[in-house]
Amino acid sequence: MATLVAIKSSPLEDAEALQKAFKDAEALHKAFKGWGTDEKSVITILGHRSVYQRQQIRKTYEEKYQEDLLKRLESEISGDFERAVYRWMLEPADRDAVLAHVAIKDGSKGYNVIIEIVSVLSPEEVLAVRRAYHNRYKHSLEEDVAAHTTGHLRQLLVGLVSSFRYGGDEINPKLAKTEADILHESIKEKKGNYEEAIRILTTRSKTQLLATFNRYKDDHGTSITKKLLDNASDDFHKALHTAIRCISDHKKYYEKVLRSALKRIGTDEDGLTRVVVTRAEKDLKDIKEVYYKRNSVHLEDAIAKEISGDYKKFILTLLGK
Amino acid sequence: MATLVAIKSSPLEDAEALQKAFKDAEALHKAFKGWGTDEKSVITILGHRSVYQRQQIRKTYEEKYQEDLLKRLESEISGDFERAVYRWMLEPADRDAVLAHVAIKDGSKGYNVIIEIVSVLSPEEVLAVRRAYHNRYKHSLEEDVAAHTTGHLRQLLVGLVSSFRYGGDEINPKLAKTEADILHESIKEKKGNYEEAIRILTTRSKTQLLATFNRYKDDHGTSITKKLLDNASDDFHKALHTAIRCISDHKKYYEKVLRSALKRIGTDEDGLTRVVVTRAEKDLKDIKEVYYKRNSVHLEDAIAKEISGDYKKFILTLLGK
Repeated sequence: MATLVAIKSSPLEDAEALQKAFKDAEALHKAFKGWGTDEKSVITILGHRSVYQRQQIRKTYEEKYQEDLLKRLESEISGDFERAVYRWMLEPADRDAVLAHVAIKDGSKGYNVIIEIVSVLSPEEVLAVRRAYHNRYKHSLEEDVAAHTTGHLRQLLVGLVSSFRYGGDEINPKLAKTEADILHESIKEKKGNYEEAIRILTTRSKTQLLATFNRYKDDHGTSITKKLLDNASDDFHKALHTAIRCISDHKKYYEKVLRSALKRIGTDEDGLTRVVVTRAEKDLKDIKEVYYKRNSVHLEDAIAKEISGDYKKFILTLLGK
Repeated sequence: MATLVAIKSSPLEDAEALQKAFKDAEALHKAFKGWGTDEKSVITILGHRSVYQRQQIRKTYEEKYQEDLLKRLESEISGDFERAVYRWMLEPADRDAVLAHVAIKDGSKGYNVIIEIVSVLSPEEVLAVRRAYHNRYKHSLEEDVAAHTTGHLRQLLVGLVSSFRYGGDEINPKLAKTEADILHESIKEKKGNYEEAIRILTTRSKTQLLATFNRYKDDHGTSITKKLLDNASDDFHKALHTAIRCISDHKKYYEKVLRSALKRIGTDEDGLTRVVVTRAEKDLKDIKEVYYKRNSVHLEDAIAKEISGDYKKFILTLLGK
């Protein structure tokens, strides 16, 4: 089991939290009893607990019933609902390790998930995911990414995964200008100097990269993401595009993921679940606003039309409906 | 100032340690007084204190005299002696960050120092160095390495620096065979498939790599380091060679660094200081044994012949003479 999230609290708060977890574990156990599962209780309880509370419920449940709550959930519920609840129950770094592992196996269509995880999270959060990946898979994340890719794509993905970017706010404007030009040259020609573009995108701090992207727009009359879209025909260019979008404005990026997931014939439940579960306790509220501004439809309403059953109830609960 | 090393201890031990640090700070302050410095006291005190004690002395000195002990030392002593004491006084991860930074500026002749740091330390220790580098230089280590190199050499160095290798003991023997063959093909031809060799060396766990190097020897009749020596004419091949030696047997590697440092006309004091200071509290005793076995001369005697003055006294103190 992954390390629990440690939060400082008073002894009284600890006792109360423990009692609550105990009650939740009991209620869940009751929901599993007999034929069928009381899915409503599962959604009501787990959908309204914080990451810390969920870890405590899992621990308490295991101590009380000598059974892993996650394993029990897997046998009680199924399909997209199961997958969403399972992911929701994992500690965040551990969840991202699982998502990255699945994405590596998915090959070409999983690259965006890997890029998203390591480009949106803070440098210290990425390290936590890499540590969780060690614990689960007895390999390093970069090791598995590298073994499944080649050429420039490998260089870019492994660089993004392995980078421990400086997290400070310092900007070097001269460097932003030089490197905006390098990126421009690199993207312009199809056989450009990708080595340098990869170096810049995988090693510079996010603040410095934002300055570089702004400078690009000022000097070259269009945003670097628009320019890249013209060329985004292969996996490498698509990966470049995704990385830049995740670094420049990850809320806008997530809005697009949701929009595409819902627009598809046969909704992309994995994409939908991923964004809702991973951002619910972070900035899902902002992403909902971006979605509304872009589509003039509330995200909840758009989702409600596309999915159904317990999965729908659970996702809408996480959306705060 | 860098983070202090935290060691658990009882309140009584804490009080005693603090009192000792206080006395040491006073004695050092006295050693700096008047014309000239009492170098003997500096050597006797600092040369016999653990990493934790040195950090405590530095803190106590600053509180008591409103002055950074390191700055004061810089103004009191000079030359190789100063450099050795300064490095000895830094917290290990911070010291390696400084060594790496100097090495990057040194260009081609500094590559081995960078490779040595990130290949000998444990994965978690490498992260600590990368964090210390952020704190000091407001850049990431891989960012500065990448900006100063190109091509395959960049790929190898950045890969070694950025990797967070899995630290477990699992070995996949089949993989060891496949990758021993890939390494063999890659080194054999001058224009080999370096991409794959770089992938293997920068991402696999050290235990797995040892199995691969052993398999190489079994299947190809010679050690991979010997084979590489035949080709080690350019910076890239030299870097490959250094990385493999640091991963296979770092004590043997350090013995060679010391041997070369002493053999040179005009001793390489930086190399000598680096090995003695960084390994003194780790495995310098073993390295001394390896040195004796290889040269039939005690390391202390070899060093005593080549250097002199306070620098010599200090280095011999760290060697336990």
